Amino acid sequence: MGHHPLVRGDENARLYQYEQAVKQAFAGIEAVLRQLAAWQHESDFVGRAQGHARATLGFELPAELLQDTWIQALDTGRLYAWCVFETFRRMSAEFFEQRPLAVEGAASFHAFLQQCGFHTLDISPCADGRLAHVIRYVLRLPHEPVRRKSYAGALFDVEDSLEKWVETEMLRQREGRPNAADAPTRYLKVAVYHHSSTRPDQEGCAAHGSDTRRAAQGALERLQAFRQGVENSFCCGASIDLLLIGVDTDTDAIRLHLPDADGAMDVDDYIDANELYHATANAAMGDAEATVQDHLRRHCSAANMTVPAPGMLRLAARLLCANLAQIDYVRRYHGGRYADIGHQERFIGMGIGFEEVQLRNLTYFAYLRTVEEGAQDLDVGIKIFNGLNVRRGLPIPVVIRYDYHGQVPGARARAEARCQQLEAALQQRYHAYVEQGLLHTLLMVRDCHAGASAEVVGGSLLCSDQEVH
Amino acid sequence: MGHHPLVRGDENARLYQYEQAVKQAFAGIEAVLRQLAAWQHESDFVGRAQGHARATLGFELPAELLQDTWIQALDTGRLYAWCVFETFRRMSAEFFEQRPLAVEGAASFHAFLQQCGFHTLDISPCADGRLAHVIRYVLRLPHEPVRRKSYAGALFDVEDSLEKWVETEMLRQREGRPNAADAPTRYLKVAVYHHSSTRPDQEGCAAHGSDTRRAAQGALERLQAFRQGVENSFCCGASIDLLLIGVDTDTDAIRLHLPDADGAMDVDDYIDANELYHATANAAMGDAEATVQDHLRRHCSAANMTVPAPGMLRLAARLLCANLAQIDYVRRYHGGRYADIGHQERFIGMGIGFEEVQLRNLTYFAYLRTVEEGAQDLDVGIKIFNGLNVRRGLPIPVVIRYDYHGQVPGARARAEARCQQLEAALQQRYHAYVEQGLLHTLLMVRDCHAGASAEVVGGSLLCSDQEVH
Repeated sequence: MGHHPLVRGDENARLYQYEQAVKQAFAGIEAVLRQLAAWQHESDFVGRAQGHARATLGFELPAELLQDTWIQALDTGRLYAWCVFETFRRMSAEFFEQRPLAVEGAASFHAFLQQCGFHTLDISPCADGRLAHVIRYVLRLPHEPVRRKSYAGALFDVEDSLEKWVETEMLRQREGRPNAADAPTRYLKVAVYHHSSTRPDQEGCAAHGSDTRRAAQGALERLQAFRQGVENSFCCGASIDLLLIGVDTDTDAIRLHLPDADGAMDVDDYIDANELYHATANAAMGDAEATVQDHLRRHCSAANMTVPAPGMLRLAARLLCANLAQIDYVRRYHGGRYADIGHQERFIGMGIGFEEVQLRNLTYFAYLRTVEEGAQDLDVGIKIFNGLNVRRGLPIPVVIRYDYHGQVPGARARAEARCQQLEAALQQRYHAYVEQGLLHTLLMVRDCHAGASAEVVGGSLLCSDQEVH
Repeated sequence: MGHHPLVRGDENARLYQYEQAVKQAFAGIEAVLRQLAAWQHESDFVGRAQGHARATLGFELPAELLQDTWIQALDTGRLYAWCVFETFRRMSAEFFEQRPLAVEGAASFHAFLQQCGFHTLDISPCADGRLAHVIRYVLRLPHEPVRRKSYAGALFDVEDSLEKWVETEMLRQREGRPNAADAPTRYLKVAVYHHSSTRPDQEGCAAHGSDTRRAAQGALERLQAFRQGVENSFCCGASIDLLLIGVDTDTDAIRLHLPDADGAMDVDDYIDANELYHATANAAMGDAEATVQDHLRRHCSAANMTVPAPGMLRLAARLLCANLAQIDYVRRYHGGRYADIGHQERFIGMGIGFEEVQLRNLTYFAYLRTVEEGAQDLDVGIKIFNGLNVRRGLPIPVVIRYDYHGQVPGARARAEARCQQLEAALQQRYHAYVEQGLLHTLLMVRDCHAGASAEVVGGSLLCSDQEVH
């Protein structure tokens, strides 16, 4: 299958290889446990189980969980959660040590962004795991310089975003990072909602009752509130730019709601990347972004709207071109439509961090400081895992994470205490699951200032022979 | 009784009048309810009760709570909580409408602070109610320009303080507020711990097991972590200044831990305002602050430490002079030592706000965004009220408050939702109290941007005939 003529370069093979390696590592767990269940009453069970786990999963299992199956049946649930955690721990370590998704020329991304008139790109996608690859895959952005905070329904916290805006402007003013304060650039906030083209009423956004228009409207209103908040709180013409994007989680094709010259967007008016893909299927190879910019100008003209500022037009064209590459990817490796259009996440991630999760349908991620504030987002996640795991008797694995700034004294200890606090609050809120062994936790912290790997600091399944890494 | 010669002006009478008026309004509640309990079976009970309440407390009681006492005994607990809330609501409204603690020349305070080399004064006292008057009474500062966030044991949140530092520097850089970024001033963070000179082992800080040295050490370490965090996180010589103060909650005399020329402080070395009071009892009237500065210089010399920067020396002298006025106050109106050296708070305040609470032993105030994060501070408060109220069968009144910035769209609705979320979390954590009718709530929000009064938005005791104000 050939490339779309507007897609340059080819990182699809590399992206696919990474996706497959990680997804298969998780997918292999159930088959191994099924085999172990069959062998559990055999006399050489422990040795055989360890050999099989080593060969198939690449690691051994905690001896504690394999012994004594002649007395009590194998605790498949615990073993399952343990394997999910261990697989994630290995994936996380590899991510930070080997940087499998590193982008060549990531440094030039800042320059490009600033040429477009933006000094910060802050994206809030929905917490849904089918959107977790939005940065690195769907929009083909380098993940390091882009800020991502996920919220159910993309309904991000306005006050939290205002804090981030303040910090960003302070660094520009005081330290000229990432550019000087008098450079004519702005903070760009993007909200990403989603829908399912195959089953719009069932597989859309749970937080908006699978109502695509409501999802778009909700995200747009949150964006507008953030901008208004900046404008009303600070003087000297303080404002931000906004962009609303929808993702079809079945095909990864985006809907880009192009702002007009005044920055206004319309929930009902958007560029459909899938239509763009077909409309330009026979375009001449050449300057892809210029071709897409022409398309966008024609769209504005047809929609009777003003053309956005040149920088916004340029960024929009780049995002759309990037998405054409992802449409190619899904066509080539997933027959144009994912087999798993519904939820297939392997674990819930909660807390602050998870930069290493850039893959689709692996993690339901709720960005939160406390369970109290993030309860609604967590409830959505638990509901999803009721359908995926609990229904079959498998526990819900929850990775609790708190990234910290290691240069602040005591920050690591406080991050660890935060993890424990989050675990306690989680276990309290879902105590019925805990009591039935249907909820397990792994606690991790990471010094994001040092760019270090994440470290395990606790959890419900630490076995005597497993060290805290 | 004459003034101390170094105390200028006399606002003590005015401060006492306000303290007495508010404290008596709360103190009157129990006597009225005692009377009502005695009358509850009389035929004209409702009319008589209302008349007595009007005459004594200045307001009527909810009819609902007075009716039917011929069937069921008067619910004194509910009535008590309702009266505490109504008294606080009236006190709060009066505070914002009539500004009884307004300071003449508060505007000149910023100028003074900047002359001393500081652009922000950020004070974290212990949450203990016996310290709630530390800004306006103990240190005689105007309450509006001083930032106050209370934490049990004065163990303030370093990351929260870093955020405030960032915001402050952004405003200086971007808007020249309160002064230009190139002015040679710094952010001053003060932590205030406390002890009891009468019963040091029983009436000290509960969060530190009434161990005065531990309280001082804990607060000092937190201050140092904050400074280190600023220095490590930002370049260009970013730093802050620190000051550690202890308050004897029996006499309001402070211990000021004077920083040396490098900003270092010693938990065991301090200026005792009470000693200063006596040492200077026969000083010549004149330039009080100059006299105290001389005293401080001699202290440095005797302690073999370097003299702090002139601005810090000047501020320290001003705070000590202010405290001499408060020592006079306690000597004149409270016999030199409060009768209530132990806890006598009337309610717990939790959330964000409470600028109107500037009085001693009225409110145990826990600054928090969520119960999850503030649980330890709340537990200390609940323990205190077990001794004060629950032991006698009276409920714990908890005022939940969330101040918001009204210029940010949706902020009011989010503040209201926050109050409800805090109430739900509180009721869940202390459900045994709720089930026994021993915990009641009042929810308030306030637009701090507009300088408005606080508004009631809910609570556990809204009666049918009481409107939400």
